[in-house]
Amino acid sequence: MSRIAYVNGRYVPHARARVHVEDRGYQFADGVYEVIAVLKGRLVDLAPHLDRLARSLAELRIAAPMGRAALAHVLGEVARRNRLGARGMLYLQVTRGVAPRDHAFPAAARPSLVVTARRLPRPNPALIEKGVGVITLPDIRWGRCDIKTVSLLANILGKQAAVDAGAFEAWLVDAAGTVTEGSSSNAWIVDAAGVLRTRQTDRAILPGITRLSLIDLAGELGVPVAEGPFTPAEAGTAREAFLTSTTATVIPVVAIDETPIGDGRPGPITRRLRAAYLAAIGGGDGEGAP
Amino acid sequence: MSRIAYVNGRYVPHARARVHVEDRGYQFADGVYEVIAVLKGRLVDLAPHLDRLARSLAELRIAAPMGRAALAHVLGEVARRNRLGARGMLYLQVTRGVAPRDHAFPAAARPSLVVTARRLPRPNPALIEKGVGVITLPDIRWGRCDIKTVSLLANILGKQAAVDAGAFEAWLVDAAGTVTEGSSSNAWIVDAAGVLRTRQTDRAILPGITRLSLIDLAGELGVPVAEGPFTPAEAGTAREAFLTSTTATVIPVVAIDETPIGDGRPGPITRRLRAAYLAAIGGGDGEGAP
Repeated sequence: MSRIAYVNGRYVPHARARVHVEDRGYQFADGVYEVIAVLKGRLVDLAPHLDRLARSLAELRIAAPMGRAALAHVLGEVARRNRLGARGMLYLQVTRGVAPRDHAFPAAARPSLVVTARRLPRPNPALIEKGVGVITLPDIRWGRCDIKTVSLLANILGKQAAVDAGAFEAWLVDAAGTVTEGSSSNAWIVDAAGVLRTRQTDRAILPGITRLSLIDLAGELGVPVAEGPFTPAEAGTAREAFLTSTTATVIPVVAIDETPIGDGRPGPITRRLRAAYLAAIGGGDGEGAP
Repeated sequence: MSRIAYVNGRYVPHARARVHVEDRGYQFADGVYEVIAVLKGRLVDLAPHLDRLARSLAELRIAAPMGRAALAHVLGEVARRNRLGARGMLYLQVTRGVAPRDHAFPAAARPSLVVTARRLPRPNPALIEKGVGVITLPDIRWGRCDIKTVSLLANILGKQAAVDAGAFEAWLVDAAGTVTEGSSSNAWIVDAAGVLRTRQTDRAILPGITRLSLIDLAGELGVPVAEGPFTPAEAGTAREAFLTSTTATVIPVVAIDETPIGDGRPGPITRRLRAAYLAAIGGGDGEGAP
């Protein structure tokens, strides 16, 4: 079955999904996006994703390409037409639209809307059973990482550096020496005192949807949570660590810069939170990680 | 006459110049660009633009889409087919290519190459005769502004803030309180001691081609030059100020944050440097600013 994409009002074969070279997304990274998991046909956390999209657009003064209900309809339609099976994802991108190249906002441009879909493979069980390693890198990203923009060049360079080092993810370290987040995920530790810690939401990190769910679930499970910065050294002496994202859900982190965290194996709080999260989104234990 | 663009091996009508939605330039800002002025059919400073492009690609580990001679041929051909007249510009963009969306570099993707062209209107004489105002803004861009990437979201927000304030450009101020550069131009002052000053080329600024020409010309004209940081306060007490870019060439700056610089009119060193630059590139005095 051929994949279908939505591009500016039309459902088209994925291979023919194209935008103009003067789309400001292409020339200026002038756009925002969301990634939404689809489990057994159901869009996971659609409302908070649409809320965050609306905020991203407002921060950049990009008009919404259509109303919320219409957008939800398009997303559902793309999911349906692509028959995503047990597990898939939607990618949604909105840009300021097509205009002759000029840095200032165009007086009249209609926002572009692109939605693509794909199935996600079964997660690799080893990632969950054995955990993954992360490296640390200086956080060289811009000052508005709270907006979910396609200006992701620093993120992809970070991820590639991780891959080059044989690690799963790069945790980014700000000028104060504290971890902000990963290149495409939020970063967490269970510190030496047993407190679950993750960076507070300021302009240095993306307010992850999965991150927020985890904070709620930790509260329900009686795990103490503190939102605030931690250093790589604190991660190195933590009991446990993990990362979260829409597509990764919860993945144990067992080493930072090749130093084992805790006993070098996924920890019990990580496992409980992962199980609770998968239960909450309605995915089985095989539904989570990529 | 309809405009012609070059897109991945084909010369196509500009209106039909399209790239795939999974081009990494669109989804990740994973690409670089150059803007080259064309005066009476001649590409200005082609060699240093191609040198800088090669450096940008190498820094991001993107393969060159074709050899240097072939690329020069394509650029010339796009210029020729668009009959740019007395004054035009070429826009060239190279991205890492099309691949299923994943942060890490794709194992196999052919770089995308897009070249567009347009005529430039006669410069507005008022900009040169009266000069322009700039505002200052915190420099929130990423840590590798020395690479000429399409990750320009912070730049366009800066430019739009300038437009909103009735100014021509935004000068960006780093954490140390010094001016790095403008949102799409380099920043210069002639300080109270008569020294021409512009930021040294480090990772905080783009090494402008016009910037380098101006430094050489200043030397030839006997104007003392110091490459180093200056503060907005120093700009406020400077004798003169101006900005440079490929399309703007040299534009006098006569106010910063609504405070007049010098006597609030374009200064003599600015005028001499502008005239020398236009003579050097072979443009008449009407060929410069947008």
